[in-house]
Amino acid sequence: MANQAEHTAMRRAIELSTRATWTTPPNPDVGCVILDAAGEIAGEGWHERPGSPHAEIVALRAAGERARGGTAVVTLEPCNHQGRTGPCSNALLDAGVARVVYAVADPNPTAAGGAAHLREHGIDVESGLLADEAAAANARWLTPFRSTRPFVVWKYAATLDGRSAAADGSSRWITGAAARADVHRLRAAVDTIIAGAGTVIVDDPQLTARDGDAELPYQDQPLRVVVDSSGRTPEHARVRDESAPTWIATADEVGATPDGRVDLPKLVAALYERGARYVLLEGGPTLAGAFFAAGLVDQVVAYIAPALLGAGPNALVGAGVTSIDGAIRLDTQDVATIGGDIRIIATPRPSKE
Amino acid sequence: MANQAEHTAMRRAIELSTRATWTTPPNPDVGCVILDAAGEIAGEGWHERPGSPHAEIVALRAAGERARGGTAVVTLEPCNHQGRTGPCSNALLDAGVARVVYAVADPNPTAAGGAAHLREHGIDVESGLLADEAAAANARWLTPFRSTRPFVVWKYAATLDGRSAAADGSSRWITGAAARADVHRLRAAVDTIIAGAGTVIVDDPQLTARDGDAELPYQDQPLRVVVDSSGRTPEHARVRDESAPTWIATADEVGATPDGRVDLPKLVAALYERGARYVLLEGGPTLAGAFFAAGLVDQVVAYIAPALLGAGPNALVGAGVTSIDGAIRLDTQDVATIGGDIRIIATPRPSKE
Ligand SMILES: NC(=O)c1ccc[n+]([C@@H]2O[C@H](COP(=O)([O-])OP(=O)(O)OC[C@H]3O[C@@H](n4cnc5c(N)ncnc54)[C@H](OP(=O)(O)O)[C@@H]3O)[C@@H](O)[C@H]2O)c1
Ligand SMILES: NC(=O)c1ccc[n+]([C@@H]2O[C@H](COP(=O)([O-])OP(=O)(O)OC[C@H]3O[C@@H](n4cnc5c(N)ncnc54)[C@H](OP(=O)(O)O)[C@@H]3O)[C@@H](O)[C@H]2O)c1
Repeated sequence: MANQAEHTAMRRAIELSTRATWTTPPNPDVGCVILDAAGEIAGEGWHERPGSPHAEIVALRAAGERARGGTAVVTLEPCNHQGRTGPCSNALLDAGVARVVYAVADPNPTAAGGAAHLREHGIDVESGLLADEAAAANARWLTPFRSTRPFVVWKYAATLDGRSAAADGSSRWITGAAARADVHRLRAAVDTIIAGAGTVIVDDPQLTARDGDAELPYQDQPLRVVVDSSGRTPEHARVRDESAPTWIATADEVGATPDGRVDLPKLVAALYERGARYVLLEGGPTLAGAFFAAGLVDQVVAYIAPALLGAGPNALVGAGVTSIDGAIRLDTQDVATIGGDIRIIATPRPSKE
Repeated sequence: MANQAEHTAMRRAIELSTRATWTTPPNPDVGCVILDAAGEIAGEGWHERPGSPHAEIVALRAAGERARGGTAVVTLEPCNHQGRTGPCSNALLDAGVARVVYAVADPNPTAAGGAAHLREHGIDVESGLLADEAAAANARWLTPFRSTRPFVVWKYAATLDGRSAAADGSSRWITGAAARADVHRLRAAVDTIIAGAGTVIVDDPQLTARDGDAELPYQDQPLRVVVDSSGRTPEHARVRDESAPTWIATADEVGATPDGRVDLPKLVAALYERGARYVLLEGGPTLAGAFFAAGLVDQVVAYIAPALLGAGPNALVGAGVTSIDGAIRLDTQDVATIGGDIRIIATPRPSKE
């Protein structure tokens, strides 16, 4: 049984695990706290980005000799595979920790086995502490393993009154430069960007990830997907340019709804088949509404500009909600000021049915 | 000329002046920092609520003997009248400060004269330091003096996608209990609450200030105003009950626009005549849009629920904006989490024309 200090340390490790928003993909978000033999915090760490040391390694380095005889508290089962930094299970053994407490078992077959390896070497290992909270903090990475479908984030920009464009259709720019740069960091984190045919025709977006003014190399660009039932995406649409791969997903290819539109559960399954694990849905309002109606949105990233329009298209349309009791309720994960705008990250609660 | 320490102290005093949101009315929001003779911060204070000590008194008490020979840095000219706590100008003299730096002159004829009184007693007095910032922080109190019209706050509640009700009209409740309690604190701070005939007919709100479950006494209730061109407010509307005074403001009584609606600039002028200084516009979307179109909104208090509807009435309608360049841009003053909801307080920027 985990003691009170380990409980507190796990809460802290979960908090640390969320520090590196949008730099860890495709790796998991992991946090770690090392307690010394007396139960005091000796080191903390989180995994920052692919190629950087795992959370356990960072925390062990911070703890130094105080790790000996202590406890490692970590949000995900320590890995057992020879990655860029060597298995964490061995590093924990080398550091002489006496006990390892982790929240969530590693569902990744190539990395799992860390717990068994530690136990074989005489370490006291406990799993499952605050597993739900830890899993929620790492849902972006866990969802594809657990549900064999990609994690889907809907990102939108709107005014305080929920308009995503003005009455005349103009929408450049609702949010400021800092928020737009933030969107590019999000785009660079995902492997797939989806837009509806409506948005592609009206706005002709390029849907690539740019870092400052420089575009990411082709091989690092997410796949661009246009959800386009009848293949009406214009031949010269920018989304078809050479800067990134593109898939025009038609109802013929993916499968059709009774009214002839692209079947979204089938689309998401097809994307998973193609390797998609982290998908950014960029709009527009109609397609986003259909994704919500199908229960396919895992996270919302809203950029709210402190501005009012009083007219113009709404940020979300046709999500299938008719009364306030049926509202799609979200749990807020983060509220931040980005330049002059407000960014809200939130997770839809499981629906009541 | 104010020195660097006084500049820094004034910034701090302005920040302090905003601490007591919604408890100071009808008094001004004032902050004060006492610097000792060496220029170090010796005491800080702000005015909390009517009947509580003024900012200068709180800061002088905190500074104690260190005030002697020091400097009082205060956002508003120290008062010179015998209020509940005696004139601040005398308190500053008694404490032996050598210098007083204030931002904004007191426009209130009954309280002004503090600077002159201090100078007469040999104090070095300087005015105008960071006057614009200090005035902005105290705009709620200064606006009626400067523009002979009440300060108007538009409050609304909406989902992340800007809906103020669901498709079937249901809107109870969009926001949670904590946000609704917060609205009652705001209602208790204002002297007037305005709603449109549309809201009164659809929602039948009572528009009174309740503290917890207890209603404020009649004499402390804000005036309820229904903007109702033709006097169609139902006879048994709750807004007509005995719990607070009510004015059904018709186009006949106030004056009419060319299309027969209540003339809003005239309404606001009439409210000022009746003693209104701090007005809460509670909607709905149509009336709020008309207030924006007339340039009559001084502050926005938005309660944003982390929820999505995808259908239903918009939070704001018909503000006269057609393109993104004409958007009503706001400066954000405060973003706070209230229960599960997000409260944003922001100020419309002066329009470009
Ligand atoms: N502020 C923002 O964050 C933001 C982001 C994006 C877009 N926008 C704005 O949104 C506007 C365009 O939005 P929109 O609503 O017209 O278009 P949209 O949501 O981008 O695309 C909707 C289209 O997607 C296609 N589609 C295919 N399968 C579908 C399905 N199962 N369910 C729903 N749609 C499906 C449909 O066209 P087919 O049937 O022909 O395939 C549908 O008309 C633009 O004005 C743009 O500026 C704003
Ligand atoms: N979520 C929130 O914060 C919130 C707050 C309030 C209301 N609501 C919702 O808003 C809905 C009602 O809104 P609404 O837009 O129909 O009504 P509204 O904005 O409350 O009232 C509009 C009415 O005010 C009258 N009016 C008088 N002079 C006017 C002028 N110069 N300009 C504009 N209007 C003037 C007009 O009726 P006459 O011409 O007959 O006078 C007009 O129809 C309800 O569903 C309610 O639930 C939501």
